[in-house]
Amino acid sequence: MTEETVFTYGAPQLKFGEGAADEIGYDLAQYGARRALVVTDPGVAATGGPQRIADAMKTYGIDADVFDGVHVEPTDASMRAALEHARANGPYDAYVAVGGGSSIDTAKAINLLTTNDGDLSEYLNPPVGAGRAPERPLLPLVAVPTTTGTGAESTTVCVLDVLELKVKTGISHPRLRPALAVVDPALTVSQPSGVTASSGMDIVCHALESYTARPYDSYERKSPEQRVPYCGANPVSDMWAERSLALLAKSFRTAVREGDNRQARADMALAATFAGLGFGNAGVHIPHANAYPIAGQVKSFRPEGYPDEEPMVPHGMSVSLTAPEAFRFTYQARPERHVHAAELLAPDLDRPNDPAEHLPRALLSLMHDIGIPDGIGGVGYTEGDVPALVEGTMKQQRLLATSPREVSADVIAEIFKRSIALW
Amino acid sequence: MTEETVFTYGAPQLKFGEGAADEIGYDLAQYGARRALVVTDPGVAATGGPQRIADAMKTYGIDADVFDGVHVEPTDASMRAALEHARANGPYDAYVAVGGGSSIDTAKAINLLTTNDGDLSEYLNPPVGAGRAPERPLLPLVAVPTTTGTGAESTTVCVLDVLELKVKTGISHPRLRPALAVVDPALTVSQPSGVTASSGMDIVCHALESYTARPYDSYERKSPEQRVPYCGANPVSDMWAERSLALLAKSFRTAVREGDNRQARADMALAATFAGLGFGNAGVHIPHANAYPIAGQVKSFRPEGYPDEEPMVPHGMSVSLTAPEAFRFTYQARPERHVHAAELLAPDLDRPNDPAEHLPRALLSLMHDIGIPDGIGGVGYTEGDVPALVEGTMKQQRLLATSPREVSADVIAEIFKRSIALW
Repeated sequence: MTEETVFTYGAPQLKFGEGAADEIGYDLAQYGARRALVVTDPGVAATGGPQRIADAMKTYGIDADVFDGVHVEPTDASMRAALEHARANGPYDAYVAVGGGSSIDTAKAINLLTTNDGDLSEYLNPPVGAGRAPERPLLPLVAVPTTTGTGAESTTVCVLDVLELKVKTGISHPRLRPALAVVDPALTVSQPSGVTASSGMDIVCHALESYTARPYDSYERKSPEQRVPYCGANPVSDMWAERSLALLAKSFRTAVREGDNRQARADMALAATFAGLGFGNAGVHIPHANAYPIAGQVKSFRPEGYPDEEPMVPHGMSVSLTAPEAFRFTYQARPERHVHAAELLAPDLDRPNDPAEHLPRALLSLMHDIGIPDGIGGVGYTEGDVPALVEGTMKQQRLLATSPREVSADVIAEIFKRSIALW
Repeated sequence: MTEETVFTYGAPQLKFGEGAADEIGYDLAQYGARRALVVTDPGVAATGGPQRIADAMKTYGIDADVFDGVHVEPTDASMRAALEHARANGPYDAYVAVGGGSSIDTAKAINLLTTNDGDLSEYLNPPVGAGRAPERPLLPLVAVPTTTGTGAESTTVCVLDVLELKVKTGISHPRLRPALAVVDPALTVSQPSGVTASSGMDIVCHALESYTARPYDSYERKSPEQRVPYCGANPVSDMWAERSLALLAKSFRTAVREGDNRQARADMALAATFAGLGFGNAGVHIPHANAYPIAGQVKSFRPEGYPDEEPMVPHGMSVSLTAPEAFRFTYQARPERHVHAAELLAPDLDRPNDPAEHLPRALLSLMHDIGIPDGIGGVGYTEGDVPALVEGTMKQQRLLATSPREVSADVIAEIFKRSIALW
């Protein structure tokens, strides 16, 4: 085997800080835009933030409509409806997504399908879709994350449920990446503590999974057309992950406890951005793969701080529940990294006798303190559910390929079983 | 005063590693390009690298011409000549700069003036020019640095000498930033050790100056149209600077001593890239401001490893000569940062009793070991030259504004006088 020698690193331009969201009109004008669509969900729209952003854009000569019909956890149907809205009210020459991953991903799909021909289904990742690549450039997309966690502002993917096939899949192409991420910590101050806890665990796992991901130079040498946005752990993604973990160590518990602590909110927003810039290039692995079925097969769990119309396991929570067990399994592939990550995330934790326990303990202590449920049992799963969960995980081969240790269905089953109760 | 709360961060996309330069044709095809101009200087052209890159591009259907007429230390005349060549042989739909800062900056000027109206002089920074902003988007520019140091692949500026006015100035606009930086350490293996030493000191100073720069939140709040690419030290530029210093500590002396040590070359290429991504957003200050007159007023100095047709002080060397004294002066503005930078750059150095001496000593030890001349006296200046040098520095107000401590002509004169001999 010829080892890979090349890594790639892509990122949106960044504007960070309180007040940054007021300047989007200026930034859009720099791209030559005059008419933009603001894409958001009803919950975020109700805060008034998206309309304020649209109004502020007018100061710089940008005419803006607000579309507030994004479905949280978007589906092919919800994305088609958003696309219909954009087509019926457009043409626009820029898009601004205000919200969590759902709004940002919906805007990516709108951007793709208003600039390129064909149907949504053709662009979906194989085997669900044909993995078609866009032929034409997309319009500038400005991503304004209001939930500190998803990292969607940095990534080249959009994730959706295909209703008829009951499968979560996505579209992945470098052109989907937003041109500019505007991160304004003031937009997250109203976030309930349960949401801060869950979405914060998403940040933690982005950082830990990209840091422990299979290294880019352990893969076989690729030709340029084989390169993928997620190229494995590399010196750039490592740096973002380490810095993100240090910020989380400093401010995660405080942000959950004191939602109006502006320094903690700013640190969390920065940690989310940094982790997104890291995993957006390195990739994530087992905890994120397990999160798909944990969220998708939910029974009756209703988390605090979220709308309670329907049962759900929030994304960050679903990612975190098997993380301690997953990192016990991956430990032996890169022991020193697992220990160093634990030291960054929990600098005050006593060093356990068994170094393989260091990172799991750091995670368990944090999850316990911020009110994450006690394992997948805490969100309603029993041992009888494990086979169906494993089946869901094994469909996420794109993510499992980034694991530093090879995984089988048996390994995943063990991880689920040991994650039924955590403490 | 209302303090600034916002910082900005922009960067090219990055492809890093041995063999990365062979894939440029594929990357250009992704931008929809079919005909590109490779811009380089005669010295780099003589290595055969630019022609090999142009030939490899054909594999991906890109037709490429090589222009090897870049003047090292470009002038308005040399840039106009390059522009004439591009106009006479174009139109092109992408540019590829292969070389040091001179080639990359010349390609930036060609890109600007083949996509936008008006004369070069209109775009120059005030007061020399009118600081005109480009109205139309530029073409994709791929920067392939072959000298590890300049950071031109990351920045939004191009620097040139205006011959008639005998002044060094530049053009500064976010649109000048290359779309993609392709950093292939294999391209630097042939670099003579004197060039590695000088250009490496440029990396060191990029990292140290951006790390000690006036922090972004100490400036007065700007409106979006007042924002400049160099926004002062911020959490993102700090991270790049710290990581760059750690790589330099590990590999700079080795790269000078053993030019064919591929790990050291790769570390230096990464250090240069990281430092460029940092200072390309934070800015640089006193050592870089002093470098302008040190290089510009050269008498008879001819450095080892450089073409000896004409006297010159290489850019990195000219930056480094006053750096120890400059950091003695700035120490009191941010003592803890100066000490931490010294610890990163020279982890094995004994801690001096006076912490203000820590960073200067780390620099002096390094400069001595790698054969940098003993101060500005070592490149031919005497105390009698100081007034003219000070005058040259004081013209660089854009850089001096980033100093963490306010500077006057008297301060600069003291720094020059104390830098006549260093050890």
